[in-house]
Amino acid sequence: MQFSKSFPLNSWYAAAWTHEVGRRDILARTVCGRKIALWRKTDGTAVALEDACWHRLLPLSMGRLEEDQLVCRYHGLVFDATGRCTHIPSVARISPSACVRAFPVVENHRYVWVWPGDPARADPELVPDMHWNDDPDWAGDGNTLFLACDYRLVIDNLMDLTHETFVHASSIGHRAIVEAQPTTTHDDRTVTVTRWMMDIDAPPFWRAQLGRPGNVDRWQIIRFEAPCTIVLDVGVALAGTGAVDGDRSQGVNNRVLNTITPATEGTCMYFWSLLRNYRLHDQSLTTQLRNANARIFEEDRVVVEAQQRSIDTLLDQSLRNLNIDAGSVFARRSIEHLIEQESVPAQKSGPERGAARAER
Amino acid sequence: MQFSKSFPLNSWYAAAWTHEVGRRDILARTVCGRKIALWRKTDGTAVALEDACWHRLLPLSMGRLEEDQLVCRYHGLVFDATGRCTHIPSVARISPSACVRAFPVVENHRYVWVWPGDPARADPELVPDMHWNDDPDWAGDGNTLFLACDYRLVIDNLMDLTHETFVHASSIGHRAIVEAQPTTTHDDRTVTVTRWMMDIDAPPFWRAQLGRPGNVDRWQIIRFEAPCTIVLDVGVALAGTGAVDGDRSQGVNNRVLNTITPATEGTCMYFWSLLRNYRLHDQSLTTQLRNANARIFEEDRVVVEAQQRSIDTLLDQSLRNLNIDAGSVFARRSIEHLIEQESVPAQKSGPERGAARAER
Amino acid sequence: MQFSKSFPLNSWYAAAWTHEVGRRDILARTVCGRKIALWRKTDGTAVALEDACWHRLLPLSMGRLEEDQLVCRYHGLVFDATGRCTHIPSVARISPSACVRAFPVVENHRYVWVWPGDPARADPELVPDMHWNDDPDWAGDGNTLFLACDYRLVIDNLMDLTHETFVHASSIGHRAIVEAQPTTTHDDRTVTVTRWMMDIDAPPFWRAQLGRPGNVDRWQIIRFEAPCTIVLDVGVALAGTGAVDGDRSQGVNNRVLNTITPATEGTCMYFWSLLRNYRLHDQSLTTQLRNANARIFEEDRVVVEAQQRSIDTLLDQSLRNLNIDAGSVFARRSIEHLIEQESVPAQKSGPERGAARAER
Repeated sequence: MQFSKSFPLNSWYAAAWTHEVGRRDILARTVCGRKIALWRKTDGTAVALEDACWHRLLPLSMGRLEEDQLVCRYHGLVFDATGRCTHIPSVARISPSACVRAFPVVENHRYVWVWPGDPARADPELVPDMHWNDDPDWAGDGNTLFLACDYRLVIDNLMDLTHETFVHASSIGHRAIVEAQPTTTHDDRTVTVTRWMMDIDAPPFWRAQLGRPGNVDRWQIIRFEAPCTIVLDVGVALAGTGAVDGDRSQGVNNRVLNTITPATEGTCMYFWSLLRNYRLHDQSLTTQLRNANARIFEEDRVVVEAQQRSIDTLLDQSLRNLNIDAGSVFARRSIEHLIEQESVPAQKSGPERGAARAER
Repeated sequence: MQFSKSFPLNSWYAAAWTHEVGRRDILARTVCGRKIALWRKTDGTAVALEDACWHRLLPLSMGRLEEDQLVCRYHGLVFDATGRCTHIPSVARISPSACVRAFPVVENHRYVWVWPGDPARADPELVPDMHWNDDPDWAGDGNTLFLACDYRLVIDNLMDLTHETFVHASSIGHRAIVEAQPTTTHDDRTVTVTRWMMDIDAPPFWRAQLGRPGNVDRWQIIRFEAPCTIVLDVGVALAGTGAVDGDRSQGVNNRVLNTITPATEGTCMYFWSLLRNYRLHDQSLTTQLRNANARIFEEDRVVVEAQQRSIDTLLDQSLRNLNIDAGSVFARRSIEHLIEQESVPAQKSGPERGAARAER
Repeated sequence: MQFSKSFPLNSWYAAAWTHEVGRRDILARTVCGRKIALWRKTDGTAVALEDACWHRLLPLSMGRLEEDQLVCRYHGLVFDATGRCTHIPSVARISPSACVRAFPVVENHRYVWVWPGDPARADPELVPDMHWNDDPDWAGDGNTLFLACDYRLVIDNLMDLTHETFVHASSIGHRAIVEAQPTTTHDDRTVTVTRWMMDIDAPPFWRAQLGRPGNVDRWQIIRFEAPCTIVLDVGVALAGTGAVDGDRSQGVNNRVLNTITPATEGTCMYFWSLLRNYRLHDQSLTTQLRNANARIFEEDRVVVEAQQRSIDTLLDQSLRNLNIDAGSVFARRSIEHLIEQESVPAQKSGPERGAARAER
């Protein structure tokens, strides 16, 4: 397995929204440098095959589906959902080596997740929890941005929301954000940044969501899960009604779900969605929030893509960290840890290494 | 001479159609990585000069013709058809070294052929036979595709016509092609793949050309000549009338002439033409066949260019060969042989090498 | 300091016209590979900062000005005109290392000049003399070309005006230019090419400027100042009225000011202006001359950009020099000399080197 310095391979990555993968067209996506053809069997199961025919490397996504199999557009080789070649026109005996790689796939909560690394380690339990996407107590929608930047720049962006004050000055930005010091906690795979802004004047967006006058307690709880998923728990409640102690009954709450899949070194797919736990059947509000959020993310796109170009030019300079970057620092450290684990040759984890440890 | 791993230099390559090279404008083409300026002397002789002025390297194709000489657009240096600089404004004595390279040129059967390698070895007898292009017993026309792929992917494409069934399913594709096993023969510089489909229902295209009812015997005879010319002899005759034994009087015949010139590593110029030996004076049929064929080749373009992008991404994977690739395997082997011959230093072919052989 | 083989860093380079740098928007320019943000303080002083925030490298040119300071668009870091970070939202103590590079700036004669090299050596006395641009005895205007070529190809172009005969055949070209031999003189940093064409029929452009019949004496005096500024003193006077001896009272005179700033390896910004010492208040003539000159420079763009592409392809070939290139040869030599001086490690100019010299 090729070792990348930018992303771990043994991880679930969102490759598509479930509605993007169908039984007619084959979807071509790039995940961690792997070209992947995504499609469904007649029973609806999602399939992810390496997007290059075993024979002459034509992308299989240019082919067509025939029942539960994929037919290559060039010479008609047929592959089943496991990647095995089952038929070659004018060839009687097919070599058992004639197969393309099939990637483990898990589908849940509106995403198709693929595992680009070692299939033996692909444990479905490790898929990030994004249940809000199809939980009946929540309503909302999302979209995908294809960004010309390293996925970690998006993670930096989300782990420190003080940028809202400057990047999104005309919408969700608020001086209170930069004034409230957050707390940051972390373990091996998760980082949580919590910021409470107590008894403040609600910014316009939240005033409209709450629909009631009076000062509010506002929270932003950012939870990162390595390598690239971030769930934002954000909201406001009437000031002093106990939201900070767990009683959010006098408030409104959004979940912003974000998972940012590395496509290549320097590009990524950013899947986001915005869910709310109020006015659940107001489809007009869903549309309005999705569109407003899309505009905000376009402001982020301008920033992170410009940042990437700047980084590419200034090879001799590195990103500096401030206290506001604590969340980002821990997040990048946990990603780095996953990458390092993969760079350790597998055989070193056997007896010899154990012996070496015993000597210490 | 620079050694390339992709194409031999000591070979004739089609650089242009004869009608593209004129006495007014200078045509710029790239052949095997060489930038070439193509033009004609007043007597009509085609000339191929290196497309960079000896002085400051401006492309000579940006200059203008003055009688039998070319005047550079930048400082007015004048070059004759041999590449010698004959005049430099405000310079009295011209250095004999002031010259650009002139490439050997042969013009025949509607193509201007150039020889990018050692001029001493440029034997006009080696130009591929494409006489159908201006033979009064044949009629038709062609065109050029500029493709973003290695020229050998086009050769692969043409050497195995089973792809017609899948790439050209809506036009010339036919299941019979993949069902009939071809025979492949070869010598040092040529490969011939022969496929006969006996007593079959004619596909729509051939039915129309034949203009008669009844089953047919159909043939595809593919003849490759190293490094990059392929003549297809294709046709149908009424079944059982002896076409397979040489009597094609009850049939119709096309010749598809193909020569694919490497431009750079990863790009090529594909010159094709389609000739027929029936309804010779039906200009409307010529137009119709040329346009239909152009559409078919656009389907091939989509495939070979996608294949090239896939190859560029998947550097660790190689093309695999099946029995249907026998023609391609031999064709690539003969190209490889020509390239290898050029990589042998010239001095090794002298006495010393002979001595070494004697010792064995 | 990074050493470049293409341009010296210890030099003043025009980065913009003065009117392009303002108090509202921040101008992003690239000079010698350095990304630079240009803006003005409230007192009008021009400022040039490295165009990347100290924190996360977002281009500062995407930020906004607030009084005499610049606010980064991403996290609101504030920088003053010296590049020092004076405020970071939610950060109490700012590290003294939190600063971006400020480039020395001199503004005069309509240009904003920056010094990309060692600030200690940035002597304002070294700015090239371009006083004609705002001298009341002269009138005219200019513009900027962004060219995809090495800046030295533009210098070559200007140092040898025989190219006018061929590149600008339809406007200012004239056979007399190639017939008159110029004289070339030079010292360490300047090269002067002088060409007098005595008693000739005036070309159309100069006939119109002079507005009088009769043969003329025409001059072209090209003065290069390393590394990239060229002032053309061009004009005509009635033949035999002593212009060659210094009496230009019976003539008309233009100054074409040119300074060509390397942006990156292979691209440059070419600032030009055309000034005249007659019909000073004829604004229509200013417009007419500026537009005519812009058309002429577009003809040069076609040539120098094609030349660059040719050079990039023909890596094994070099530019050759003729007698007409004497000015260019000396100009390039003086540039080369400046570059070489910068490649000498600074410590070598101390005692040790002196000692080594004493031994000889």
